[in-house]
Amino acid sequence: MKDKSNKSKTWAKPLSGREFPRFSAIKTFFRLPNASLKEKFDVALFGIPYDGGVSYRPGARFAPSAVREASSLGRGFHMTRDRNVFDVLSVADIGDSPTVPIDQAQTYEKIEKFVTDVLKSKKKFIAVGGDHSTTLPVLRALKKHYKKPLNFIHFDAHLDTYPAAWNCEYHHGAFARHAVEEGLVNPKKMLQIGIRGPLTGKDDLQFIKKHGIMVKTVDDVRAVSLQKFCASLPSFSDGLTYLSFDVDCLDPAYAPGTGTPVVGGLTSYETQQILRALKIKDLVGGDIVEICPAYDHSDITSLVGVDVMFELMHLMA
Amino acid sequence: MKDKSNKSKTWAKPLSGREFPRFSAIKTFFRLPNASLKEKFDVALFGIPYDGGVSYRPGARFAPSAVREASSLGRGFHMTRDRNVFDVLSVADIGDSPTVPIDQAQTYEKIEKFVTDVLKSKKKFIAVGGDHSTTLPVLRALKKHYKKPLNFIHFDAHLDTYPAAWNCEYHHGAFARHAVEEGLVNPKKMLQIGIRGPLTGKDDLQFIKKHGIMVKTVDDVRAVSLQKFCASLPSFSDGLTYLSFDVDCLDPAYAPGTGTPVVGGLTSYETQQILRALKIKDLVGGDIVEICPAYDHSDITSLVGVDVMFELMHLMA
Amino acid sequence: MKDKSNKSKTWAKPLSGREFPRFSAIKTFFRLPNASLKEKFDVALFGIPYDGGVSYRPGARFAPSAVREASSLGRGFHMTRDRNVFDVLSVADIGDSPTVPIDQAQTYEKIEKFVTDVLKSKKKFIAVGGDHSTTLPVLRALKKHYKKPLNFIHFDAHLDTYPAAWNCEYHHGAFARHAVEEGLVNPKKMLQIGIRGPLTGKDDLQFIKKHGIMVKTVDDVRAVSLQKFCASLPSFSDGLTYLSFDVDCLDPAYAPGTGTPVVGGLTSYETQQILRALKIKDLVGGDIVEICPAYDHSDITSLVGVDVMFELMHLMA
Amino acid sequence: MKDKSNKSKTWAKPLSGREFPRFSAIKTFFRLPNASLKEKFDVALFGIPYDGGVSYRPGARFAPSAVREASSLGRGFHMTRDRNVFDVLSVADIGDSPTVPIDQAQTYEKIEKFVTDVLKSKKKFIAVGGDHSTTLPVLRALKKHYKKPLNFIHFDAHLDTYPAAWNCEYHHGAFARHAVEEGLVNPKKMLQIGIRGPLTGKDDLQFIKKHGIMVKTVDDVRAVSLQKFCASLPSFSDGLTYLSFDVDCLDPAYAPGTGTPVVGGLTSYETQQILRALKIKDLVGGDIVEICPAYDHSDITSLVGVDVMFELMHLMA
Amino acid sequence: MKDKSNKSKTWAKPLSGREFPRFSAIKTFFRLPNASLKEKFDVALFGIPYDGGVSYRPGARFAPSAVREASSLGRGFHMTRDRNVFDVLSVADIGDSPTVPIDQAQTYEKIEKFVTDVLKSKKKFIAVGGDHSTTLPVLRALKKHYKKPLNFIHFDAHLDTYPAAWNCEYHHGAFARHAVEEGLVNPKKMLQIGIRGPLTGKDDLQFIKKHGIMVKTVDDVRAVSLQKFCASLPSFSDGLTYLSFDVDCLDPAYAPGTGTPVVGGLTSYETQQILRALKIKDLVGGDIVEICPAYDHSDITSLVGVDVMFELMHLMA
Amino acid sequence: MKDKSNKSKTWAKPLSGREFPRFSAIKTFFRLPNASLKEKFDVALFGIPYDGGVSYRPGARFAPSAVREASSLGRGFHMTRDRNVFDVLSVADIGDSPTVPIDQAQTYEKIEKFVTDVLKSKKKFIAVGGDHSTTLPVLRALKKHYKKPLNFIHFDAHLDTYPAAWNCEYHHGAFARHAVEEGLVNPKKMLQIGIRGPLTGKDDLQFIKKHGIMVKTVDDVRAVSLQKFCASLPSFSDGLTYLSFDVDCLDPAYAPGTGTPVVGGLTSYETQQILRALKIKDLVGGDIVEICPAYDHSDITSLVGVDVMFELMHLMA
Repeated sequence: MKDKSNKSKTWAKPLSGREFPRFSAIKTFFRLPNASLKEKFDVALFGIPYDGGVSYRPGARFAPSAVREASSLGRGFHMTRDRNVFDVLSVADIGDSPTVPIDQAQTYEKIEKFVTDVLKSKKKFIAVGGDHSTTLPVLRALKKHYKKPLNFIHFDAHLDTYPAAWNCEYHHGAFARHAVEEGLVNPKKMLQIGIRGPLTGKDDLQFIKKHGIMVKTVDDVRAVSLQKFCASLPSFSDGLTYLSFDVDCLDPAYAPGTGTPVVGGLTSYETQQILRALKIKDLVGGDIVEICPAYDHSDITSLVGVDVMFELMHLMA
Repeated sequence: MKDKSNKSKTWAKPLSGREFPRFSAIKTFFRLPNASLKEKFDVALFGIPYDGGVSYRPGARFAPSAVREASSLGRGFHMTRDRNVFDVLSVADIGDSPTVPIDQAQTYEKIEKFVTDVLKSKKKFIAVGGDHSTTLPVLRALKKHYKKPLNFIHFDAHLDTYPAAWNCEYHHGAFARHAVEEGLVNPKKMLQIGIRGPLTGKDDLQFIKKHGIMVKTVDDVRAVSLQKFCASLPSFSDGLTYLSFDVDCLDPAYAPGTGTPVVGGLTSYETQQILRALKIKDLVGGDIVEICPAYDHSDITSLVGVDVMFELMHLMA
Repeated sequence: MKDKSNKSKTWAKPLSGREFPRFSAIKTFFRLPNASLKEKFDVALFGIPYDGGVSYRPGARFAPSAVREASSLGRGFHMTRDRNVFDVLSVADIGDSPTVPIDQAQTYEKIEKFVTDVLKSKKKFIAVGGDHSTTLPVLRALKKHYKKPLNFIHFDAHLDTYPAAWNCEYHHGAFARHAVEEGLVNPKKMLQIGIRGPLTGKDDLQFIKKHGIMVKTVDDVRAVSLQKFCASLPSFSDGLTYLSFDVDCLDPAYAPGTGTPVVGGLTSYETQQILRALKIKDLVGGDIVEICPAYDHSDITSLVGVDVMFELMHLMA
Repeated sequence: MKDKSNKSKTWAKPLSGREFPRFSAIKTFFRLPNASLKEKFDVALFGIPYDGGVSYRPGARFAPSAVREASSLGRGFHMTRDRNVFDVLSVADIGDSPTVPIDQAQTYEKIEKFVTDVLKSKKKFIAVGGDHSTTLPVLRALKKHYKKPLNFIHFDAHLDTYPAAWNCEYHHGAFARHAVEEGLVNPKKMLQIGIRGPLTGKDDLQFIKKHGIMVKTVDDVRAVSLQKFCASLPSFSDGLTYLSFDVDCLDPAYAPGTGTPVVGGLTSYETQQILRALKIKDLVGGDIVEICPAYDHSDITSLVGVDVMFELMHLMA
Repeated sequence: MKDKSNKSKTWAKPLSGREFPRFSAIKTFFRLPNASLKEKFDVALFGIPYDGGVSYRPGARFAPSAVREASSLGRGFHMTRDRNVFDVLSVADIGDSPTVPIDQAQTYEKIEKFVTDVLKSKKKFIAVGGDHSTTLPVLRALKKHYKKPLNFIHFDAHLDTYPAAWNCEYHHGAFARHAVEEGLVNPKKMLQIGIRGPLTGKDDLQFIKKHGIMVKTVDDVRAVSLQKFCASLPSFSDGLTYLSFDVDCLDPAYAPGTGTPVVGGLTSYETQQILRALKIKDLVGGDIVEICPAYDHSDITSLVGVDVMFELMHLMA
Repeated sequence: MKDKSNKSKTWAKPLSGREFPRFSAIKTFFRLPNASLKEKFDVALFGIPYDGGVSYRPGARFAPSAVREASSLGRGFHMTRDRNVFDVLSVADIGDSPTVPIDQAQTYEKIEKFVTDVLKSKKKFIAVGGDHSTTLPVLRALKKHYKKPLNFIHFDAHLDTYPAAWNCEYHHGAFARHAVEEGLVNPKKMLQIGIRGPLTGKDDLQFIKKHGIMVKTVDDVRAVSLQKFCASLPSFSDGLTYLSFDVDCLDPAYAPGTGTPVVGGLTSYETQQILRALKIKDLVGGDIVEICPAYDHSDITSLVGVDVMFELMHLMA
């Protein structure tokens, strides 16, 4: 990211809490300006309010709004990286992707088009889903735009490589399978973190074995010290990388507000440390999905979402 | 309902709180036996756990489970009617209709088939939705089975005669329009109670005017004494009648757990009195829809659902 | 109540919000002094933290604490009666009756002894239960002390004249039957208000019919204007009167925090008007029961309890 | 409001739910555009996020944000008035007034300046507080701008004419006294609705008696039929009028999310009917205050706030 | 467990989420069939809805119902054990043990008889309490049936070896003492895990010292790496073993929904690892107790209960 | 602490749960007597109900009341220290410091005077805030009384050395700066634990660098084993020490009920271990601040507050 380009974009900064207290003003992500893609800035933040792909608790459609509200507490300076992301990146909130709550096919088209427009404007982006089925059209747009499969880092409790359910291909537990099958991501450069059981059956593991996807279970994360685990992570120094963070990789104690919680998950400190340890040359986009505000309390899950956005912006800087 | 037929069905009674306290045992509607349609009884209770038709808050898919839980407090003796409904009707819980959370077309087919099976078994029924889009396939099954349009009593804050949204015909605000357009119900014998604004525009009223549907707004209910209002209700002494109760006809104070609440609604006492005053010769089925447990507190909305089921059973007796 | 006696008791006043804001200080009922029975004052407020008699949701054991907290908002001046109750009565919080959470027999003895001590000290009292089973030992103490049956005003959704359950006589739905059977109250001077169905069966009504107890259902309250209903209430100008207020007489919208809620109940305005209309010569005691804080939200049920305490104090003044 | 001026402002309309579902998009009041005062439109909506004047529960600083969220369900067509307010008025969200959470004096200056700017731009306005202490600087700005005292319609459980507390003049229970004492409003054209006890003492009533303020208690509202009560309301056909709506005029069942709830309040239907019955020639501004989201559930109190905004816009049209 | 016996019991499998989505159908544990003891299967799951033994927050009576609901998310394949428990064990939900909410003596008899019937049918079992006082009659039934003391593994924050309180022997903090004193368990083969203070006094520790019970405090668990701690656990390769899991062994962050929470507890990952590391030859039964749904949020505590059931089934397989 | 002095103070003990169950009785900290400073005892517990210094969520004014309620579960015996604190210290609840919710200057004076009175009575103390701005007047009183700067141990997510905001010096993020600038604490003997980002900017770190304040971030705590970290802590064997514990040092999973939560925080076990490892010769006072009950659930944050009080009492013993 060039400082030069940024200097002309001093408007793309968070509204200061010194002018307007953090509980005030119309809520945008990180109190950033609501901008259109025609304007020049580096990273576009947006929501994908759709939860029509879930198999259990719906409600992630309200995540963009809840995360905007919680992100009022967001700040830009990273103590470990010793840098304020808003000094090196210009960032804006471009609103939400259009979606159709009761039609997945239309929604997929709209998301794909929306992300394509973002990419055409030469911006990176961070999306707040939505259930995990919304990641697929995002990856499709990336593939079409960049014309090659992406490296893919995937935080989740679930593999999301499951078969169709109820004759429906595109539920929230199948997006990763489609991403591989459609050639959107490179399974050899695909990393899943936070996976844990129980599963429905052993068959659940076949897909990752067949495609050689690297899976780091919670047991793997905790088999050694966190520092050692972080040091063991593969590098993403070639190609373009996308990162998708399903909040259910975290334990329900840390992220109660989600649709299909799984006991025995990661702590938010662990995900912070892993995100900080990742070596990614070119992170072109990322998302945080499966935040379900109706099941959250005191916004603790939304705050995790805000924190992941903060780390992703720093990974992009 | 013949006593005779009932005598052979003494099993179709609620589990006594004297044997198992009301907080115990596997939860069925009214602590009734879980039965299959092959068994003989008068009224089948079931759930339709689907909320893929909503435009705002999802979550009504959990209503059957929440109402089953709350119905543990249910009892059968009606102080006004001086009768225990379980003395004159045999009732059982037949479980839930199959649904597909992410596919409305499949869901509609499954619901229609499920209700058709109920009707073939010569039972009346009360369904717990689901969002209001689930009423349409129920009415289709009724029409096909009875071969004539039904009288239709519809409690709601909304007219539900709205046009397609996002090119989707079958959202939860359009089912009543389809019911009329498909000839499932007789608009001349159709009564809507609890309607109130605000509306999106004047056009919203055209459909009911064009079809001569009788609408009783909250203002109408309260323009005179409740006794007078009840006395003014039309009679449904001819033909077969279906009653659909959307809990948002109630004020959010009485039914906070719903997807699209509207201020200024009915009280639960008013709906009780209206339900008791209705003169219906042959109530073949009914439903309670739009209970959204994630937004309820201490089950007060589910308890309203239980109460409506109680009144419907008495209307069927 | 003699002004004279009161003048020497200026200490028995609420802590002023002007000195300590209402959210501060150790919580006593109405911010009144915590006093022992040896001190001189007119009315003792106390808790009876016991819920071992409930058949559904427990938790009323926390009601005294929750009502103390909410009563910080309490004030003394009655706009209709044009009088500050604390100008004419000296009132203090004497803490809680001892109870044993897992032993009803011991609890009954302790409550009876505790109330007897209050009566011996020549004070009136208002108790915050507890479930409704706690009213029975209170009435026993009153009967022993005053040596005659009391007039009894009973607000409730339920008759509480039910038979033993699970071979247990003293559950929360049977206290009124015992009160009559043990001669603690005079059934001819007994009034039940707020009663409504559904009931378990017709038998439920036998006891009140047999004993000639006056029952005012919600339908009775609303058959005429509230003013007329209030004017029709019997007078309690002879003898000593006790008033027991079960919050489930109110609709769940007004009192969600209770153990066995019943739809279609009274509004808090109705109970206020009825309490103000009651003509009671000598109200020797009263209680508010069945507040279950774990099911309340934002203390609205506890606030109803505070309001009833306020009206009872004025009825005693 | 001239149709002419409006025609050029077709942008000042709510975002259609047909384009973006109601749960999506950055949240503004009624999904209206976020505009600056330089733009031409009729009514400015804004928040006053400040709660430093409360005596009990704080949190109203989050009301503007919560009401913006809930107002996604808002619509413009009024069934009784047979008119879509957005067809006759152009309305926009101008964001929040600056405030300083820990300094009332600075906040008062900022609010007064903010409202002055609105008035200079020749717009009417509706503000979402904030605690009731925020109404005073609003009235000061109005008085300075219009140079004469306003008619004042005040919905509240409390008189808000109380003396200083803790040597602090400007708490949320004193704004109405200051408004009279500073000559901002005309006490002869001042109407308080929803008032009820208990009060701290009889002295509380002196101010209104001395100044001849018209008070309509809840008892007054319910002494006759609601239609009759509405018909008895005074007319505000002369001069300029301001309306301040404290949600605690409503019963806690209807508005649990407030700072100092009082049992026995109005229903939302009653306030709707009263607002519709008011005859106001020139309503220059209004506010909704004391919504405290942390104590609300499922947004029912915020929804009441949205409803009052809807009625106020229609009163301005 | 013989595969042979299992083959004839293919009915004793969870209802597939592919046929009925996980939010649908009548709720049984793990969506397993509701069966009677006459049928042949290996492990019986049941509830013990009783909380009359608690000293602080009641409500565990609702645990069986809440855990049934949450167990809809349950699955059978264990990633570490590489096995689907439902392939090797046939399991069914036999409903709840009868209980009497207000009579501990009757309840104890009913539980003991119920468990005896299970044992006579030659099944293993997992029970969902209830408060911890419900474990005593379970152990009594086991002792009578197997005629020898059991090995006993006990997860808890509390020792539960406390003396009688209020002259009541059988409160929830005394069951372990009685189990030892009545010879139901072998104190030399008794292991307590998760214990932590504060205690009431040093005397609290006397019982375990006197009887040589092995106590592993949270400090013990964390004094070495979790792998080392797990390796240090004693083996239960002789005799029959019972395992009782009180959710308050977990930190309140992981299990807020419990009656007597204690800060500084285990994480759910730690209990998972310990459960997986246990070497138990013959686990004849187990229970999960002290889940108090009214204090849970978004079912995270119930989900822990489901997870423990999953591990126990695998320990039985 | 001399045993001798304690012997005459046997009254200053918690109310036994054996006499009154823990859910009963008027709520004081740890069920200790409510005493005046004139009485002789060692440690005074009190509340400082004020939250006028917060920048985001208010509500800490209710913390003293919530912690009193939760402390009913408190006990005195420390398993690690092998000692019951109430055997070696006499402790009492002296109520709350006066505060003025809407005037910080008055509040600061009142707090300073209140603490001065405590110190004059030769007692140590533990205060329950209040937001963190309340610690400053406490430190002022200590400095005036002891006439020298204190050692200062400060648990927090935030440095609280930030500059004035909105021209207001005394907000909750600036108290530590003032404490240093006013010479109340010795920055060379000042330790901050739990600090983590994100920060607003690098400037945030200047103050601590300039003054040589020792900061232990969460990363520092977790860089080595917890035992090692604890062993590395500096000793406070000289001079007088004050300890201030902001609950937001904990992760939101452990302390959701706070005003400005920060993801990635400490666990309650870590803070317990650190508190136990601290070597403090003379701990003259301490506080627990920023507990915000309206955002807590099931009191888990208040319980952490209780636990910190327990550890502080033991540090004083």
